[in-house]
Amino acid sequence: MPAVLPKRNAEHLLGKLDSCELAERVLGVPLFFAGNPQSFPLEAGMDSFLEAAIEEARKGLATGGIPIGSVLVCDGKIIGRGHNQRVQHGSVIHHAEMNCLENAGRLTASVYQRCVLYSTLSPCPMCSGAALLYKIPRIVVGENVTFQGPEEYVRSQGVKVEVLQDATCIQLMRDFIKARPELWNEDIGV
Amino acid sequence: MPAVLPKRNAEHLLGKLDSCELAERVLGVPLFFAGNPQSFPLEAGMDSFLEAAIEEARKGLATGGIPIGSVLVCDGKIIGRGHNQRVQHGSVIHHAEMNCLENAGRLTASVYQRCVLYSTLSPCPMCSGAALLYKIPRIVVGENVTFQGPEEYVRSQGVKVEVLQDATCIQLMRDFIKARPELWNEDIGV
Repeated sequence: MPAVLPKRNAEHLLGKLDSCELAERVLGVPLFFAGNPQSFPLEAGMDSFLEAAIEEARKGLATGGIPIGSVLVCDGKIIGRGHNQRVQHGSVIHHAEMNCLENAGRLTASVYQRCVLYSTLSPCPMCSGAALLYKIPRIVVGENVTFQGPEEYVRSQGVKVEVLQDATCIQLMRDFIKARPELWNEDIGV
Repeated sequence: MPAVLPKRNAEHLLGKLDSCELAERVLGVPLFFAGNPQSFPLEAGMDSFLEAAIEEARKGLATGGIPIGSVLVCDGKIIGRGHNQRVQHGSVIHHAEMNCLENAGRLTASVYQRCVLYSTLSPCPMCSGAALLYKIPRIVVGENVTFQGPEEYVRSQGVKVEVLQDATCIQLMRDFIKARPELWNEDIGV
């Protein structure tokens, strides 16, 4: 069971429980990880979060969309997943990270502040801004070779931004940009 | 008829027509204003755009939501309207400006670059980032007394940001924050 509040009708719970506490109560066991999300290491097992983001990117590609995926991780568990929905839903705001945050639902500030946001691609100004709004302390980026968002600005606001330069992420975007340059340009306002 | 492309199924039009050209063809008359959106003056009549944003904020309040509204103006015409949808749609990304951009639909870069984004409240980091992503050159803000986003950063990126300190906008937010502080805090990640 994902450690999330139901997206709707959860207002009465906010301020009483956060999603991780809720998950602990439901599961009856302590959660996998608790601590400062800026300090926990990118161990071998942690790459599974990037794998999950890549899986989202592939889902997007398979449905005719732009292959960018994202997951939101709280206390070592994925609590939200999403991918770019420009084509599928005609959306100008559902970039992968935004779609992931929306799918995670309404969360308390204390949850966001224990989260790591994974994205297969360097977050654009909008998605970077969303991470800053919710004070997500750490962002793990698949690659910034094909596109680079305002990483330095985000770092200047106290967020830890790590770039993995993952070969699969780079290839997904290179192939897509070559095949659909006009769609890619639209997605980044060019 | 609003000067927007249909939100879905519009991909074939993108790159061939932009929304304002489309509106001109439909209406058969030149549009009200064409020029650099950073330079056209805030005449008395232009305040009607802020009025439209306030109307959106009131709609949001009337449906149990957070009273922040926004309109997107291209060549002197409103091409998108929206308001905060945190309560109504359980959304963490549909701030007023985001909802407005989403409602405006997929637009070409050349349209965004002729736009002015109006908001009753100073845009947060996410909404500011969305304006930067799409290179919207001008933002008109109802007030920044009750909340202030990263206006200086946005200005440093070449965007003209004007703050009107409108008494109605201030009162709407003051009343709301007093009545629902927990909801307001959630909306700004506090």
